[in-house]
Amino acid sequence: MTSASVAPRIGLMMGDPCGISPELTARLLADEEIVGAAAILVIADSRVLADGAKTAGVELDLASVKRAADADIAPGRPVLLDLGHLDPASVSVGEASAAGGAYALENFRTGLGLARDGVVDALCFTPFNKQALRLAGNPFEDEMQFAANFLGYDGPHGEFNVLDALWNARVTSHIALKDVSGLLTADRILNALDLTDRSMKAAGYARPRIAVAALNPHAGDGGNFGREEIEVIGPAVEEAKRRQFAVDGPFPADTVWLRARAGQYDAVLTMFHDQGQIAIKLMGFDKGVTVLGGLPVPIATPAHGTAYDIAGKGIANPEATRRAFRIACAMGTARRAAQ
Amino acid sequence: MTSASVAPRIGLMMGDPCGISPELTARLLADEEIVGAAAILVIADSRVLADGAKTAGVELDLASVKRAADADIAPGRPVLLDLGHLDPASVSVGEASAAGGAYALENFRTGLGLARDGVVDALCFTPFNKQALRLAGNPFEDEMQFAANFLGYDGPHGEFNVLDALWNARVTSHIALKDVSGLLTADRILNALDLTDRSMKAAGYARPRIAVAALNPHAGDGGNFGREEIEVIGPAVEEAKRRQFAVDGPFPADTVWLRARAGQYDAVLTMFHDQGQIAIKLMGFDKGVTVLGGLPVPIATPAHGTAYDIAGKGIANPEATRRAFRIACAMGTARRAAQ
Repeated sequence: MTSASVAPRIGLMMGDPCGISPELTARLLADEEIVGAAAILVIADSRVLADGAKTAGVELDLASVKRAADADIAPGRPVLLDLGHLDPASVSVGEASAAGGAYALENFRTGLGLARDGVVDALCFTPFNKQALRLAGNPFEDEMQFAANFLGYDGPHGEFNVLDALWNARVTSHIALKDVSGLLTADRILNALDLTDRSMKAAGYARPRIAVAALNPHAGDGGNFGREEIEVIGPAVEEAKRRQFAVDGPFPADTVWLRARAGQYDAVLTMFHDQGQIAIKLMGFDKGVTVLGGLPVPIATPAHGTAYDIAGKGIANPEATRRAFRIACAMGTARRAAQ
Repeated sequence: MTSASVAPRIGLMMGDPCGISPELTARLLADEEIVGAAAILVIADSRVLADGAKTAGVELDLASVKRAADADIAPGRPVLLDLGHLDPASVSVGEASAAGGAYALENFRTGLGLARDGVVDALCFTPFNKQALRLAGNPFEDEMQFAANFLGYDGPHGEFNVLDALWNARVTSHIALKDVSGLLTADRILNALDLTDRSMKAAGYARPRIAVAALNPHAGDGGNFGREEIEVIGPAVEEAKRRQFAVDGPFPADTVWLRARAGQYDAVLTMFHDQGQIAIKLMGFDKGVTVLGGLPVPIATPAHGTAYDIAGKGIANPEATRRAFRIACAMGTARRAAQ
């Protein structure tokens, strides 16, 4: 049972019950390759999962327990931790609700606790709905902040977008474009590089090769259109090299993606949100994965949302969820190896 | 001879002689489909063109004249206007030189004059080298400014990037990112929309459908990350609609390209350089075309540069030049029809 003994243990947490999360969860559990790749503990309500299987048109046959301690998980033998906390008849498909938000949060909280305690090695979750989370009284901006708070963690952490083998991290995120330049400091860039390096090592990269994007058109054209490359980004890259990161740049933002796509780099660190998002979405809207990096617990999720417009129709594409699961497996394996 | 009589007359001006322009020009002239699509007047030195044909490995058999008035051009029968102004032995392949810059400028100036005088309907040129232009004492920032000055034109004009049937225009271009927000005004956006609409109509679009990009991530998320969408871009789009432009937006910059690529729009107006360039380069680095729009004379050129690193090897990809030529033909046809 060597392969079983080293297989990662993954907590698969169902997200919002009113979107495509139930059918995505069911599809994953009906996929032999996925189920064989890890020991899976599914965290959901059995009735919602049954509805998801019906929508997806798949048959699920998995053991169900009420307490995680009773779950005997192994590759090929996933177990459902049935929290019994939502009657699907009490919510409407395609509509954000407090009950739906509370359901997803309870799955998430349970998974986080199990991962923190070492019962599972890594987590994967299907999409949450932000409006439903607000309706449920969740005060946190996003799943990342919720997780950091739950884990009592205040170290560096951040979201990564992953497409195939290419990671995207960013120095600034949800802020006005006019404020980006003022926020760029060498320290902030070095911290982002450090977080990227650590998070990718936690996903199995021995020495991730990171390309750093410039801020200005043509990387500022030697200072003609902006000096951040000369005064901030360039020096940060040089310092990162001295610290032995495998880093290059700054490269013009419009060509850095061509280099990365050609396989010259494993990651691109962008200075602001859309520098990365324009590229990532064009290269693969349906298969992007979000990694919550830096936390004590490795977490991955598909980058897309709850897709209320197609929920319940059985047409949701499970590819991004499958990829998120694979990355969770890689991170779980690395976490076990490090222990 | 109906088809011949309505075929556009295109001035094909050779660019820098030390890069890939000679072989691209030769390849175009050896392409039966291209040569049959328009009446072509090639503007170059016969010796440089002969070298280009040798590099490209093609045989050219075309009449040569010393004065444009002597050129009897027709589809399938291109004629070379041999300016006899550069001995290729006096320059080095792969090196920027004053002689090379002066050569390209003289071709360009000649073509502009012929187009202005109605001898040709539109222009297409192979890449110039900016450093060579500077060495030749050219005081203008780029080909566009040179052309505007030569034509004595000071109305609105601007560069467009064209990929397949998709156009990209921008409100700001070669400026520092931190200065973008301050430059955005409703007037400036309306002027860019008007220029885009006119330039695309000049290329044969009856009523171009234009998507306008937002500035901030998630289009500002309702004002949470920046208010330009609410205060400037949105009102400009509404005013453009009142003026009967086929325009929508503002759309988040990371999804507007998915809409455009799916065929929902003919053009995307971006707020700054890299919003468009990241997308255009990822979608087709080798086939992009630059249109110099708004001038009294329609001009198109491949978006790539002189590629000194591969010059003289016969491996330059002519696809972007072919596409630039096709767009020049469409613009030339529309110009004739409007006369």
